[in-house]
Amino acid sequence: MKLSEYLREGERIDDLEVNGFRIIQNPSFFCFGMDAVLLANFVRTRSRDRVMDLGTGTGIIPLLLTAKGKCASCDGLELQEAVAEMAGRSVRMNLEMFHGAGDEPDTPDKPGMTMVSRDIAAPSVEMALRNLRILQGDICEVPQNFGKAVYDAVTCNPPYIKGEGGLHNDTAAYNLARHEIAVSWEQIVRAAAHLLKPGGTFSVVHKPFRLPELMQTLQRYKLEPKRMQLVQPYADKEPNMVLLEAVQGGGPQLTVLPTLVVYNPDGSYTRQLLDMYGKP
Amino acid sequence: MKLSEYLREGERIDDLEVNGFRIIQNPSFFCFGMDAVLLANFVRTRSRDRVMDLGTGTGIIPLLLTAKGKCASCDGLELQEAVAEMAGRSVRMNLEMFHGAGDEPDTPDKPGMTMVSRDIAAPSVEMALRNLRILQGDICEVPQNFGKAVYDAVTCNPPYIKGEGGLHNDTAAYNLARHEIAVSWEQIVRAAAHLLKPGGTFSVVHKPFRLPELMQTLQRYKLEPKRMQLVQPYADKEPNMVLLEAVQGGGPQLTVLPTLVVYNPDGSYTRQLLDMYGKP
Repeated sequence: MKLSEYLREGERIDDLEVNGFRIIQNPSFFCFGMDAVLLANFVRTRSRDRVMDLGTGTGIIPLLLTAKGKCASCDGLELQEAVAEMAGRSVRMNLEMFHGAGDEPDTPDKPGMTMVSRDIAAPSVEMALRNLRILQGDICEVPQNFGKAVYDAVTCNPPYIKGEGGLHNDTAAYNLARHEIAVSWEQIVRAAAHLLKPGGTFSVVHKPFRLPELMQTLQRYKLEPKRMQLVQPYADKEPNMVLLEAVQGGGPQLTVLPTLVVYNPDGSYTRQLLDMYGKP
Repeated sequence: MKLSEYLREGERIDDLEVNGFRIIQNPSFFCFGMDAVLLANFVRTRSRDRVMDLGTGTGIIPLLLTAKGKCASCDGLELQEAVAEMAGRSVRMNLEMFHGAGDEPDTPDKPGMTMVSRDIAAPSVEMALRNLRILQGDICEVPQNFGKAVYDAVTCNPPYIKGEGGLHNDTAAYNLARHEIAVSWEQIVRAAAHLLKPGGTFSVVHKPFRLPELMQTLQRYKLEPKRMQLVQPYADKEPNMVLLEAVQGGGPQLTVLPTLVVYNPDGSYTRQLLDMYGKP
């Protein structure tokens, strides 16, 4: 199957610039942003970890973690059926790029299978890609639908804006991703606390203006904030993102990383950002 | 009286570089650090405000706020008698530099008094200096000893280290200033919440690793974190201070300021720091 045959109307394929991974996006829904890339870099998951991404959208976080060798398996939970279906096609497309077997993603290892389209990534990356599952479902129902304490790490790039304030006159998919319509911060934290093993990590990207509330809710669910990094567009501009890692049952001691600055004064990307995007 | 006559053994006089204000310090106790200077810059108190500085030590915060015209009056509360006495002498010394009347700081306005030693600062600065009081007392007993809701702003440069962990083999004065021996963070917050008028601000400098706990305790006492700034020694080093302002009864929305960087890569002060110290 040609890659273009994975596409529906209005969609496009973008290169993730990590181990040749690609993603299907539909600009009229939403495309992944720098926040997802920053979060995938920030998380300290290991190649043996079982990871859940809550509200996965296009599947960008599971695909990046898989491509980077930062998980053994990753589940991506998405509420919207059409979006989950598209993310599932992205996974199958990447599998085909490995094997020409993209239309049978759930079959177990087949002996004699050969790489067809590119240089081989680490075998663990291939295995993790086989273990990448896109699930359609509601974060609010995680405690009923998933087992307790089964994941090593949970990630989330949640809606940033409380309630329905300042809704855009835009698509439903866009609004659900940006506003806490379908799910609140507390419901996300409750789901993460349910899913995580003791000592497991919950990593998110969010807006700095909600920091006190973010921390308070995490602590209420015994998810202790352990690592934080602010992200500023420029060295002299207010941060517009915060990366936060909490540990299930962790003791109180926060490591604050150096503030990440995205652009140099001349508008070019800083060295740190170029490194993240794998650019020279 | 000569300035040197204000000094006891082991003490010295330092220039605060703001409106000619000076301070008496005893290096064998402790000297004020950059944290106090940063806090005095960070606070947004106004020239009409009544301010309380909890655990004032040498009186550095009240002296800086007074010199900068950022209060109408400032009380500095200090537990240790010898330290409070020294801070009181600093205030009288500064009064004498205005008036040659430093030995009678508590008398009301005297007609016909003249400036003797330097250029005049704003009249409001002189009045605020007359209103600067160093009080000896215990932060823990503030709720019993002070009226409720009488201050517009409370400041504190508290002991950073929880309990008696890692005590230095040093003077008692040093240890009391650095460790939560005599007072805990919660007791400080309780005192601030008691003293502040509705809408009043509580501003502190503290260690980033305690941020979640700092915020949680503030929120429990209805002091909502509203403004925060991290301070990093270098652009690529972890922050070692956090400046935090909470508002009595404020709504939840935190403004995070651009991270303040102290040194350029070559070890010289950054422009922002030089501005704070009034250097060209």
